[in-house]
Amino acid sequence: MVGIAVLGAGRIGKIHAANVAASKFATLVVVADPFADAAARLADELGAEAMTDCEAAIDRADVDAIVIGTPTHTHINLMLRAVRQGKAVLCEKPIDLDMAKSLAAVEEVERLNGRVMLAFNRRFESTFAQMRAAIEAGEIGDVRQVIITSRDPGLAPEDYIEHSGGIFRDMTIHDLDIGRWLLGEEPVELTAIGSRLIDPALMEKYDDYDTAMVQMQTASGKQCHINNCRQAVYGYDQRIEVFGSTGMLQMDNLRPTTIRRWSQEVTDAREPLLNFFLERYQQAYKSELDAYIDALVHKKPMPITVQDGLKALQLADAAVESVKTGRAVSL
Amino acid sequence: MVGIAVLGAGRIGKIHAANVAASKFATLVVVADPFADAAARLADELGAEAMTDCEAAIDRADVDAIVIGTPTHTHINLMLRAVRQGKAVLCEKPIDLDMAKSLAAVEEVERLNGRVMLAFNRRFESTFAQMRAAIEAGEIGDVRQVIITSRDPGLAPEDYIEHSGGIFRDMTIHDLDIGRWLLGEEPVELTAIGSRLIDPALMEKYDDYDTAMVQMQTASGKQCHINNCRQAVYGYDQRIEVFGSTGMLQMDNLRPTTIRRWSQEVTDAREPLLNFFLERYQQAYKSELDAYIDALVHKKPMPITVQDGLKALQLADAAVESVKTGRAVSL
Amino acid sequence: MVGIAVLGAGRIGKIHAANVAASKFATLVVVADPFADAAARLADELGAEAMTDCEAAIDRADVDAIVIGTPTHTHINLMLRAVRQGKAVLCEKPIDLDMAKSLAAVEEVERLNGRVMLAFNRRFESTFAQMRAAIEAGEIGDVRQVIITSRDPGLAPEDYIEHSGGIFRDMTIHDLDIGRWLLGEEPVELTAIGSRLIDPALMEKYDDYDTAMVQMQTASGKQCHINNCRQAVYGYDQRIEVFGSTGMLQMDNLRPTTIRRWSQEVTDAREPLLNFFLERYQQAYKSELDAYIDALVHKKPMPITVQDGLKALQLADAAVESVKTGRAVSL
Amino acid sequence: MVGIAVLGAGRIGKIHAANVAASKFATLVVVADPFADAAARLADELGAEAMTDCEAAIDRADVDAIVIGTPTHTHINLMLRAVRQGKAVLCEKPIDLDMAKSLAAVEEVERLNGRVMLAFNRRFESTFAQMRAAIEAGEIGDVRQVIITSRDPGLAPEDYIEHSGGIFRDMTIHDLDIGRWLLGEEPVELTAIGSRLIDPALMEKYDDYDTAMVQMQTASGKQCHINNCRQAVYGYDQRIEVFGSTGMLQMDNLRPTTIRRWSQEVTDAREPLLNFFLERYQQAYKSELDAYIDALVHKKPMPITVQDGLKALQLADAAVESVKTGRAVSL
Repeated sequence: MVGIAVLGAGRIGKIHAANVAASKFATLVVVADPFADAAARLADELGAEAMTDCEAAIDRADVDAIVIGTPTHTHINLMLRAVRQGKAVLCEKPIDLDMAKSLAAVEEVERLNGRVMLAFNRRFESTFAQMRAAIEAGEIGDVRQVIITSRDPGLAPEDYIEHSGGIFRDMTIHDLDIGRWLLGEEPVELTAIGSRLIDPALMEKYDDYDTAMVQMQTASGKQCHINNCRQAVYGYDQRIEVFGSTGMLQMDNLRPTTIRRWSQEVTDAREPLLNFFLERYQQAYKSELDAYIDALVHKKPMPITVQDGLKALQLADAAVESVKTGRAVSL
Repeated sequence: MVGIAVLGAGRIGKIHAANVAASKFATLVVVADPFADAAARLADELGAEAMTDCEAAIDRADVDAIVIGTPTHTHINLMLRAVRQGKAVLCEKPIDLDMAKSLAAVEEVERLNGRVMLAFNRRFESTFAQMRAAIEAGEIGDVRQVIITSRDPGLAPEDYIEHSGGIFRDMTIHDLDIGRWLLGEEPVELTAIGSRLIDPALMEKYDDYDTAMVQMQTASGKQCHINNCRQAVYGYDQRIEVFGSTGMLQMDNLRPTTIRRWSQEVTDAREPLLNFFLERYQQAYKSELDAYIDALVHKKPMPITVQDGLKALQLADAAVESVKTGRAVSL
Repeated sequence: MVGIAVLGAGRIGKIHAANVAASKFATLVVVADPFADAAARLADELGAEAMTDCEAAIDRADVDAIVIGTPTHTHINLMLRAVRQGKAVLCEKPIDLDMAKSLAAVEEVERLNGRVMLAFNRRFESTFAQMRAAIEAGEIGDVRQVIITSRDPGLAPEDYIEHSGGIFRDMTIHDLDIGRWLLGEEPVELTAIGSRLIDPALMEKYDDYDTAMVQMQTASGKQCHINNCRQAVYGYDQRIEVFGSTGMLQMDNLRPTTIRRWSQEVTDAREPLLNFFLERYQQAYKSELDAYIDALVHKKPMPITVQDGLKALQLADAAVESVKTGRAVSL
Repeated sequence: MVGIAVLGAGRIGKIHAANVAASKFATLVVVADPFADAAARLADELGAEAMTDCEAAIDRADVDAIVIGTPTHTHINLMLRAVRQGKAVLCEKPIDLDMAKSLAAVEEVERLNGRVMLAFNRRFESTFAQMRAAIEAGEIGDVRQVIITSRDPGLAPEDYIEHSGGIFRDMTIHDLDIGRWLLGEEPVELTAIGSRLIDPALMEKYDDYDTAMVQMQTASGKQCHINNCRQAVYGYDQRIEVFGSTGMLQMDNLRPTTIRRWSQEVTDAREPLLNFFLERYQQAYKSELDAYIDALVHKKPMPITVQDGLKALQLADAAVESVKTGRAVSL
């Protein structure tokens, strides 16, 4: 059994902790969070110990591996502390909002041969995974265009926006990772546009955008489009289309039921989408953790690395630069 | 050019007359209807003569072929008059509401080698036709079950109900014909149920039903289900499913556009269906007439015969008997 | 914690045992099955005791409630033994293949105020449950027609067919229960047809059918159609349509992913359906067990009773009689 | 009756000529094309005169209005000749491949108060038209993002590519027009990327691209994405999504039938799309001509003007510039 410490008892920590607790191959040793109440409540519920000191949790002898779900600015310190002790890490994205710090951290991880997995959970969602598998199996020939639609159900509260790092580093970064992954090649050029259509004053205040588009291409000419919005009245919208030389794959949204409604006003109507990422990616979070534990138990390479985290952050930074300068950015 | 007389200037006569007038291979010679105004208006619009005497219209030397769109009780007389003069007939269904009279008429037509086509227009609708072609091409192997859904958008007015011959002879008869046609074998047993759910008093008054189901099977065991209702709030509902040993074919409704609407309440919602049969089967009426004229011009056999009309009426009569007796009826 | 004994370690027993073991409110005390190996393997995996004597398992002091997943002919004895000891029972359908025995058992259960829940798991499937809730909320007005499609992916092996009680008591019985439940009224008349289209020799041998249709109606005239087939090449097909006076609800199949494929041959193509009931109704089995335990813990009435089991069996028997006699059967 | 001359007897001229001939409010006076055979064949079939001299056709006293379907480089001369004689013009897009010439022509048309309609036929397609109407009716609140997918079924022959003006001026121009029209505001910035994925040698030869994306925004921040490809194995792909503050509209492709196919390999599969624009936009071409004739008969303003032609060409030119420079282009 792998002994695991989950750092962070917030929204994302709760999911990881529950998945660790349910695993047959791991033990949830400790939940650590400076907010003692949150840590205690979550640890209690799952039969683990609670601590307020995340570093001490890493240091425990009965802890073999770490899951980091704390605020972004704490990621690097916790990750490196664990790596230096030879412990494995599953770290929520992004590594850090600052590129230079991220780069230094990645170099340090690689110098130490650290085992760190970046938590791009969508790659483990079963439909995403099967799309990628179908592409690799040659089902649609050569990929030509990837179209990613990703819209949140509602604008996050101001304090979230304030610390989010902006739409491109917080929200688009997931789509940039999936874009890279489905293109099967690195993008070499990127252009982005950003708008303030939902709450212009709030976006102005934090120099952020609530509605965005990104366009990028690889050296061989494969193209990717991403569209994002912080608010879609019909729910959390997650769709992908991959168009290739011999076919196309489309991924539709998940919905709570398969019911279609007919009335005097509409036919074939389906319900609004699953509200948000915790519901939409429930299976993905579980499969992600299973993949992490599987890599630990069977000493496999990490399925997603810090390099992936770095590349996604580079693309997000390029998007920010493109919006500011009105120019395409070469990568 | 085939000279054609259209008898009846009502709803269905108008469609046939317009299609004749638009044909490259036929001339609309005359529109005849005892209602002089209706005949004149329609004839005028399409550049034809108007008459009030249907029999005289049949008798004209410049008329080679007839289209009968008059009330049901007049069908047999007009059909036989035309046949006796060696003129071809396209006759709206049913031949007559009375089985004995229909049988006698069919025998007379056959004795005279009359060329009469029964107007089961749905067989010419392009989706219906392609389903049948796919079945014949063996695409789904052996047919096992045919499921037909057929619901009207709204209850017809009382005077229509009064003279309709009842739901089975008026409405279900189309589905019975399509059932026979898609099964590819004659049904040998039929059971029907009828209910009065929309306007019980009206249905009671005419000993009729507004909601019905029919179940039938062929000698080899192929099965068919039909469901009907005189009123569907979402529009004119026409769907078919044919389930076979190696696959299945489903026919969806036509809708005015391909738009899907998303809002706070619904996703993927489509508009209500095309309102009624004139819109839904517009192409079918045109193709039906083209097939009639093609049979005339190229001296081909009629694509649908009086025997088809008789078989459908037998099935409708069996449905009525089944509802009255609560028993399966052997055919 | 409710102490539970699961009787039967076969396909269905395994599901129930795993769900009991995962419940927060119940303990899986013992798994009993005359096949010692099967019992031991399942009990082991879930941390419970294994027994070969089902009756002894019922009698244990640490067992409060029973789940019966043994062969049909053993249901009544086990059920009554438990009831006589004041223990609750969740019993797989049907109560018995024999109507008289079933009736006597139900009378005995009721005389003893026994707490027995019949395992019609589909009522707990989330889409089914939400359809029923929508109907009860008046979303589609008065129900007029219920159309149930239910087809298995492949013909069961001969020894299953031999002991199944026939298609109507084994397969259709689920749909008859759902039909009753969605109609919201008891059917008063039923007609069935049965065919031998997949393996006529096998069906002949056991006087059974592989393809069937049922048509029934309630006293107020609500109608229900069911179609069944033991083999559908595209997978386990479970669809329902409920048509009402102000709208319609349709339940589509579940599929493994939401991917749609486009190629030179097809567009919008989805994958074959989930293979069979264990996958399709996984959530339903879990929710069913949760409802059973919830009724036990909170002393609520059983959500599905032996009367429901009896009614479904009566309908199945009526279907058999209708096929044999070629007549509608009054209930 | 409006007397109309159709100039050009090629693919597009044939459509316009047939639609003129079928109109109740117009007479097809003459078909003119330097290819005498083509002109004669088409004129013959539709009962019109044939000429080889397009200018002479414009000059005829019995010609009130012109439809220009000749090669692009001839558009301006013919258009201006007609305008100078006070005759109305329906001109195929683009006005010209050269911006300066187009601008001069538009100025001349406006100076002369010429009545010229640009043939952006898609605006008249019923689904497009209803999407725009729904947007204008406020159904989805404020438009935020327009996503246009437009892919041809197969690469055009080399001589078409050679004279096409390139993918942006030939193919994207339609989508740029529709983008402007659905955004309801002028784009102020545009970025494009182009790739050579289908036939790199051919595209290299003509400095053209076979796969492209465009991203643009308006002053208020509304965004539009367009993706194009010269070859989609599944057919002519024409889809639009308009995402707004209170809802979303999606336009799906038209398909020949509504049949869905189920087999061992796929479920819910639909057939490949209508092959190409003549089939897909058949109704649009007819409605476009009706709108032109309606504007002539009722002396209404032209529904699409030379300014619309100019704007679309400016956007196409900006796309070309953006691909060449790798920069966003301000408009």
